[in-house]
Amino acid sequence: MNKLFLVSAGPGAKDLVAPRAIAAINTCSDLVAYGLYLDLLGDICIGKNHHDLPLGEEVGRARLALDLAASGKNTALISSGDIGIYAMASLVFELLDQQGGNQHATEPHESQSQWQDVEIEVIPGISAMQAGASRIGAILGHDFCTISLSDLLTPWQTIEKRIYACAEGDFVVSFYNPRSRKRDWQINRARDILLKYRPAQTPVLLGRQLTREDESIITTTLEALDAKDVDMFTLVTVGNSESRSIIHNRSSWIYTPRGYSKKL
Amino acid sequence: MNKLFLVSAGPGAKDLVAPRAIAAINTCSDLVAYGLYLDLLGDICIGKNHHDLPLGEEVGRARLALDLAASGKNTALISSGDIGIYAMASLVFELLDQQGGNQHATEPHESQSQWQDVEIEVIPGISAMQAGASRIGAILGHDFCTISLSDLLTPWQTIEKRIYACAEGDFVVSFYNPRSRKRDWQINRARDILLKYRPAQTPVLLGRQLTREDESIITTTLEALDAKDVDMFTLVTVGNSESRSIIHNRSSWIYTPRGYSKKL
Repeated sequence: MNKLFLVSAGPGAKDLVAPRAIAAINTCSDLVAYGLYLDLLGDICIGKNHHDLPLGEEVGRARLALDLAASGKNTALISSGDIGIYAMASLVFELLDQQGGNQHATEPHESQSQWQDVEIEVIPGISAMQAGASRIGAILGHDFCTISLSDLLTPWQTIEKRIYACAEGDFVVSFYNPRSRKRDWQINRARDILLKYRPAQTPVLLGRQLTREDESIITTTLEALDAKDVDMFTLVTVGNSESRSIIHNRSSWIYTPRGYSKKL
Repeated sequence: MNKLFLVSAGPGAKDLVAPRAIAAINTCSDLVAYGLYLDLLGDICIGKNHHDLPLGEEVGRARLALDLAASGKNTALISSGDIGIYAMASLVFELLDQQGGNQHATEPHESQSQWQDVEIEVIPGISAMQAGASRIGAILGHDFCTISLSDLLTPWQTIEKRIYACAEGDFVVSFYNPRSRKRDWQINRARDILLKYRPAQTPVLLGRQLTREDESIITTTLEALDAKDVDMFTLVTVGNSESRSIIHNRSSWIYTPRGYSKKL
């Protein structure tokens, strides 16, 4: 078959995985993923060949998945969230592009690599920002953006330019990879830039291990956002200048209006 | 129970609906949604009370859903895509906020409306941009934003400010509501702004009726993007300055690199 599925495992909860993702995994003999994601998916992974590589070995993981598929094994490369959003799908296509000798071409041309017969299917999934928004209301209710704060692959200058653009455009913003063991100042720098443009009381969501057993949901404000409350398992979503915190039925909610109030 | 589920029905295909959404609908006696969405969901909607209202009656639909739940009927308000992204969730919270008398409050306080006992649960889903990206590769592979081009509720000045911010930040961008019967120039204006900042050959996806029976996928370039090829069922996603078109295994793909090439 030479088929490689790029599978989205969703934020964590089994009942937020699309049936199409489960069906794809069922047709595969080989799974390439962190062990944690396989644990989250549960029984459907039993009896498959598992291939794991240490954190940080993304390139190796993508190559391995392509090699397995090229050797005739139906293979699933699995990422949590949506595999197309800050996950492995982009890297697979980057490898195909480079192997095809396309990197300096102005027109696309046929790949000639050892992976040329691999048939690719991408299966979308629910990303962390959506899981987080759903737990606290509708903070993504109007125009929004996502920014990864990891400067491993993107120069900080580019990231900071995007934070300024996000602030000037008054976008709701979800920060992925807000902090790691070695990166601790980026989220505070992002907060300081946003504070120049939107109110100190702008609602903020800190969602940790979303939809998983040890989920933690904290709602705070932009001025109170601090790196000490954030780790590599946290999604940080900051509202726009019109986002509001309300209490309904003894729970706190955050929503971003689309502007119906003029009509109400 | 007084429970109101805000349910995401996904882009269209049944196997992209989260099991949690199906489970929620199963517990409900009353469904509030466009008839089309109920058709897409299929058999699970049989035997429920359907409540439909004409297109454009969003406020009436949200009020009806809250009223049904307040009267003791387990109710699902259903939107296609993710109900938290350009859909009904935000409006429900906007109504709760206004009924609670919160609209001029600086601190959140308890709602006192006829809806105060309604328990709300939001169920996230796969949005059109994710379905579109998955069909053509990984165009959302790096920082991105979403902008609705509908100026029914948002002044065009605000929308244009966001297009400029998106352009300056070099975000991949998905345009929702790119065109309607009465609005035909906005997508071309957006194209012209983006062309000042990113290459004419920047890859563009036009995804119409994504994952549905009459799905159409067109990949084009920023300079060739034109309102004549876009309607109200089309999602338009424009790559950033680094997005690339490639051909692999006789298919066209678009991806946005995260920057691994420096490591390859």
